[in-house]
Amino acid sequence: MNHSTSQTQRIKQHLSTSYLFKKLPENIVIHFAEKAQLKHADKGEILFLQGDEVEWFYFMVDGWVKLFRQTVEGEEVVIDILNANNMFGENFIFSGENYNYGAEIASEATYIKLPTSLLKFYLAKEHQISFNMLENMSQQQQIQSREIEHLNIQNAPQRIGCYLLKICPHELKNPIKLQLPYDKTLIAAKLGMKPETFSRALARLKKDLSLTIDRSLVTIPSHENLAEYVCNACSQTIACN
Amino acid sequence: MNHSTSQTQRIKQHLSTSYLFKKLPENIVIHFAEKAQLKHADKGEILFLQGDEVEWFYFMVDGWVKLFRQTVEGEEVVIDILNANNMFGENFIFSGENYNYGAEIASEATYIKLPTSLLKFYLAKEHQISFNMLENMSQQQQIQSREIEHLNIQNAPQRIGCYLLKICPHELKNPIKLQLPYDKTLIAAKLGMKPETFSRALARLKKDLSLTIDRSLVTIPSHENLAEYVCNACSQTIACN
Repeated sequence: MNHSTSQTQRIKQHLSTSYLFKKLPENIVIHFAEKAQLKHADKGEILFLQGDEVEWFYFMVDGWVKLFRQTVEGEEVVIDILNANNMFGENFIFSGENYNYGAEIASEATYIKLPTSLLKFYLAKEHQISFNMLENMSQQQQIQSREIEHLNIQNAPQRIGCYLLKICPHELKNPIKLQLPYDKTLIAAKLGMKPETFSRALARLKKDLSLTIDRSLVTIPSHENLAEYVCNACSQTIACN
Repeated sequence: MNHSTSQTQRIKQHLSTSYLFKKLPENIVIHFAEKAQLKHADKGEILFLQGDEVEWFYFMVDGWVKLFRQTVEGEEVVIDILNANNMFGENFIFSGENYNYGAEIASEATYIKLPTSLLKFYLAKEHQISFNMLENMSQQQQIQSREIEHLNIQNAPQRIGCYLLKICPHELKNPIKLQLPYDKTLIAAKLGMKPETFSRALARLKKDLSLTIDRSLVTIPSHENLAEYVCNACSQTIACN
């Protein structure tokens, strides 16, 4: 599907912020933009299900998307929750014909879908795309490795604290006021906790560090205390937020 | 360092079994073999520590190596335990100048070390190397993603059961007799369990499935029962061993 030049330009502008198109010749980005579709979606819309044939990969313009799997017994496992500027689904071109997770819009969102076939075509021609993907995959690998470490080593209150630290603003001034980006059930799922474990751990964290939480607004009296509470149980040697 | 032609040939034969050199022109593999070093090491030898400058990447010929990190509080986290035909350290060329984990020989081993600089050189010249690395990283990513899922969803006896399923021989005939590849403390660490959690979970697994364990020899009366016990709490839809 080709669309109007202004729509192509608009999509191209969004795509240019993605890691995948870094340092690529403009005509290639335009080619992707021509073949892409810009979409709006409401919460709950399914982009694809685990097992569906891989045909598109996705770039988030705004809103949130949840990547998830289901166990044989029917339990849902949240793989990730992504927002603006994140791409997903592109790595499946190396691993078979079917998505091995599903994707569901978690809050009203705008996204771009791009054909996997075009990525395959340029991957064989344009070395820079391989580099971009390698760099990005290696970063993702490190993030996953850290996540495994935290699941092994940190207790539940520390894992919630680590999540809060990561969404802290870069300019820090105590007390810190934070807006939770999506609802607590999803945060619990992302951290791999049952809702009741999450509630207990959150209560513990509030008590230990005198946090207050009013709906989605969190107030942290001391960033330093939170960092000490969390980061002593981590092997990361440089600041991670 | 260049060594004798026979040594280069020997190293080249080993390297040819690695994913990295798949479909590469022979002269490139020979160039790597010339610059590589074949080494023997005893249990406990440190190959590099977290924070060391990245200079070499490694290929295991036999034996086991443990990849690990330390938290600020000094607790050790086992990232992985690798044996023959596994490569490690090569992905650091995309992520900075220092190893972000350490590597220690876990049982008497033979390994090959290769200069990272040569990999960087060929990565820019030879598209096939990028492909090989992309394919491999994408597989590693899926394995890590599954590991995160299991840490979230499976209980401790199921995770030990899953480990046993993965080391089962491909030709299955009940009862199955398995030799544990390395000692139980390391298996516990790899599964992210404290020794006491591991012991309790193993006792539970033995009871539930009538397993017997005599030192490092495990006898599993029914593969089907073990698979049912473990795999209902997994989202993998095809057999994984």
